[in-house]
Amino acid sequence: MPHASAAAVAATTDPEAASLPVGALPATRLAVLGAGAWGTVLARTLAMNGHTVRLWCRRPERAEAIAARRCNAAYLPDLPLPATLQATADLADAVHDVEAAVVAVPSHAVESVMQRLPAVPALVSASKGFVSDQLTRVTEVLQRVHPESLVAVLSGPTIAAEVARDLPAAVTVASDDADLARLLQGWFGRPTFRVYVSRDVNGVEACGALKNVIALAAGMSDGLGLGANARAALVTRGLAELVRVGAALGGEPRTFYGLAGVGDLVATCSSTRSRNHQVGERIARGEAVTDIQASGVTAEGLATVRHVVPFADATAIELPICREVHRVTYEGKAPAEAISDLMTRAPRDE
Amino acid sequence: MPHASAAAVAATTDPEAASLPVGALPATRLAVLGAGAWGTVLARTLAMNGHTVRLWCRRPERAEAIAARRCNAAYLPDLPLPATLQATADLADAVHDVEAAVVAVPSHAVESVMQRLPAVPALVSASKGFVSDQLTRVTEVLQRVHPESLVAVLSGPTIAAEVARDLPAAVTVASDDADLARLLQGWFGRPTFRVYVSRDVNGVEACGALKNVIALAAGMSDGLGLGANARAALVTRGLAELVRVGAALGGEPRTFYGLAGVGDLVATCSSTRSRNHQVGERIARGEAVTDIQASGVTAEGLATVRHVVPFADATAIELPICREVHRVTYEGKAPAEAISDLMTRAPRDE
Repeated sequence: MPHASAAAVAATTDPEAASLPVGALPATRLAVLGAGAWGTVLARTLAMNGHTVRLWCRRPERAEAIAARRCNAAYLPDLPLPATLQATADLADAVHDVEAAVVAVPSHAVESVMQRLPAVPALVSASKGFVSDQLTRVTEVLQRVHPESLVAVLSGPTIAAEVARDLPAAVTVASDDADLARLLQGWFGRPTFRVYVSRDVNGVEACGALKNVIALAAGMSDGLGLGANARAALVTRGLAELVRVGAALGGEPRTFYGLAGVGDLVATCSSTRSRNHQVGERIARGEAVTDIQASGVTAEGLATVRHVVPFADATAIELPICREVHRVTYEGKAPAEAISDLMTRAPRDE
Repeated sequence: MPHASAAAVAATTDPEAASLPVGALPATRLAVLGAGAWGTVLARTLAMNGHTVRLWCRRPERAEAIAARRCNAAYLPDLPLPATLQATADLADAVHDVEAAVVAVPSHAVESVMQRLPAVPALVSASKGFVSDQLTRVTEVLQRVHPESLVAVLSGPTIAAEVARDLPAAVTVASDDADLARLLQGWFGRPTFRVYVSRDVNGVEACGALKNVIALAAGMSDGLGLGANARAALVTRGLAELVRVGAALGGEPRTFYGLAGVGDLVATCSSTRSRNHQVGERIARGEAVTDIQASGVTAEGLATVRHVVPFADATAIELPICREVHRVTYEGKAPAEAISDLMTRAPRDE
């Protein structure tokens, strides 16, 4: 267990309908690793709840800029950051004496950051992606490199720019350790940021990773101007792909149909603010993936789909949308042809 | 069975992965009852597939206008209608010698239209709503008034204005009679209008009705400017309400998570072209429901929610979103307060 009084928390909560009053936990020290938009917004959320938060930035100049201007100019130039949020480029300094560290670096960087990280009582993944062709989940990496830490995942429909504006959002926190999940619920929970608790780490992570690939497809469909019906059909057939992959990784049906599954899928596929959706649109409008990546845009779906297709080959799980996204992004297929091939598959019993 | 050669169709189709070539069925005579946007678009779709289609209009002047101008100026002024689509205000004339009639009138008008309708081999509901506080489904009315007819339902994510532009869409047709479902698949199916087959009439209809209430809530959320995260959370919690009502009415889980369930929910909740979504937005911006209705707008969700709340009372099924929509639309509650109450319910295990 982390240092905080988890027993006290557990005593106040009923496992069936646990209702933890927002702000019920004493303020503590927490770290967020990764100063992208989502890491910054999560750090701000924790700081606004009264916690002392250190935000680790890979680049020293970004840490200095945040310290000097009290905002993350690269991602959220209009968002003032609380004084209790301190930026640092020193990983050991970031996690010194913290109760938990939230990992919000791109999934491909998780392993190397974990290798350099000192021991931390609890590690919380906020990264959405797989890290190998066997669809290794991010918390598996956290646990392998840091067997001494408790691990959890935070996921759900969370367009960062909206959470930054304090618009309402609801997320899921999942952990094998119920006490850690309750602590996270208390640390993060605000009237505009609802935190639901789950035990299904595998399912939550599978959904969070795969939905980015479906969002690329939805972005392509929107970029081609195909409308809400086509997008809804893609989301529905995409949900079926989430369910198949999630089940193969040991996830539970209720997760696929909850906030971390259908919720995140819907938000990512229908918001023009979602990075993966934006990249799908740009591809549909003729931009090359290599050019988009060269412009500095990170869309997790582009990395995830490279892992998902070999997995589909190895397991014979049917993932037609993922396969078409891979054909478009890495095999030169025209987006219009890919979407058309998806829409004109022979009609079947549903 | 309707007149057409269902046996021939059945022989060409494998029940597990039935693939019926588009246009494989001989052209026939069909009727569509109700010349709203959706009825008109369905009639056009059938006519474009080579069938002779009669479109019944409640008002003679509309039938005359369609005959004169070859378009439905009230709903789809820019959509030319094929010459094989004939409009009539005479119900007996509309269904004379047809193989099937598609019922696309508002759900509150279904009973009276059915009472006046001569016998027809097959009746297909394209109306999305309940017709009583016991959540009587539209096909139950069709079957009660016309026990001699086979019945089916057609549903799914189908914003009419998009289907009118031949943008891709996918729908579900459900019937207890598998042969009728296959015929409908053949009659309606086009490269841009994919038709999937199901046996779960109850589930398909429950989803089609309830999603309109959730769309009112999503429209209110969007009207209040709450963003994609809030809308996605509403859609997710709304899906749970669809599942609870659908299960109570005997529907199957795969339906709730398919095109007629999550698909239609996503399209209706995320398209500004959805009537129910539009009405939700107008309510959020301060318009009174009575004024909106007086302006001639029909949003099925407004009628459906009046039936759903007594049902929830009688069955003790938890439907918090439906209840809040009812409070806003008929009990004078402020939309912002209703959405806030939904978002700030005590956090629970998901």
